Amino acid sequence: MADRIGIVVHAERGPGILHQVTGVIARHGGDISSVDILSSRPPETRIYFEIELPDETPELIEEIRSLSVVHDATVARSLTKIYGKRIIIIGGGAQVGQVAIGAISEADRHNIRGEKISVDTIPLVGEQPLAEAVRAVVNLPRTRAVVLAGAIMGGDIVEAVREVREQGLLVISLNMAGGVPEAADLVVTDPVQAGVMAVMAVAETAKFNIDRLKRRVF
Amino acid sequence: MADRIGIVVHAERGPGILHQVTGVIARHGGDISSVDILSSRPPETRIYFEIELPDETPELIEEIRSLSVVHDATVARSLTKIYGKRIIIIGGGAQVGQVAIGAISEADRHNIRGEKISVDTIPLVGEQPLAEAVRAVVNLPRTRAVVLAGAIMGGDIVEAVREVREQGLLVISLNMAGGVPEAADLVVTDPVQAGVMAVMAVAETAKFNIDRLKRRVF
Repeated sequence: MADRIGIVVHAERGPGILHQVTGVIARHGGDISSVDILSSRPPETRIYFEIELPDETPELIEEIRSLSVVHDATVARSLTKIYGKRIIIIGGGAQVGQVAIGAISEADRHNIRGEKISVDTIPLVGEQPLAEAVRAVVNLPRTRAVVLAGAIMGGDIVEAVREVREQGLLVISLNMAGGVPEAADLVVTDPVQAGVMAVMAVAETAKFNIDRLKRRVF
Repeated sequence: MADRIGIVVHAERGPGILHQVTGVIARHGGDISSVDILSSRPPETRIYFEIELPDETPELIEEIRSLSVVHDATVARSLTKIYGKRIIIIGGGAQVGQVAIGAISEADRHNIRGEKISVDTIPLVGEQPLAEAVRAVVNLPRTRAVVLAGAIMGGDIVEAVREVREQGLLVISLNMAGGVPEAADLVVTDPVQAGVMAVMAVAETAKFNIDRLKRRVF
């Protein structure tokens, strides 16, 4: 069975490094799902790889270590296993906080039963920063759902909501002024409940299926 | 001046892709700080690169597009510019929620003045999951501070706190039972204030310097 692992590589700085290390990983049939260059300060770079491997390969780490540009390489638990799926809450501080309260409490109950759900937030003001944040959500790894928490959101944010829904993300909106509620998958009036529903919708441990709901406004 | 951009590459699936695209980026002197493979489902892979470039290079995108394995490449705003610095809150649901309330409200005030601070959370139970989450924080991009929010944390979590502090992360602990408060940079009794202080400590827009505090327990 495929195993998902994390690998932290301490290496010299330089553009060729990523080339060399990914070459070794490719030879072992590793499917890289994420790479982060964590401290690109001289004299050393620390690179985190998240990799799906066809089977256990202790030689992979040895081979990475044997590269002349590599100082050390160690196995780490994968971020997917530790932090799991992400729900992103975007909007005004007061309401983002209330949605977070609901989502964090509900994630707690599911994480106790073996799920791994993180609740991530950013408070923002203004149509363009909000639209940008919504569009960029598809570039954040492990994201499953977005909650838009505000009192009025419209214009380009509506477009951004449509775009990320097309890419498979679930979008929940508070009941608010502007065009965003109309464009979302689900509209929830109580911010705490909006957070709870977002978590229920992505949790394997919950019996909740948005497609089966008879209405989309609560 | 160096410019930080995001690039989204739509490409065929396969281990050689990362090799080829990073080669083009290296030739343009691009310093890659983050790579995420966003949907590694056939028939297409979407790869997000965050790159620091010595100067504007419209040819870079053209050259990536001209690779035979690449279907399309577009410039995106960098996640660093949109989501900014991250504060990670880890612990029990009830307390993580209260710290989040404080941190999100305070981040809102700084983001209005031009900062970009995200507040990310994960509710967890148990010494080992907590210690793992603390250690993995150094592998999450853009993280500046961690808040430990619980009623009792000790054992291996204390070790994990020491390790991430050594790697330059700020650790704030609630005033709680166990060894974690003793190992943290700062101990705060009120969870809302703990969230506020975490944001103040990483915001450029705040006049708050932990090193100048005359006590470390509040």
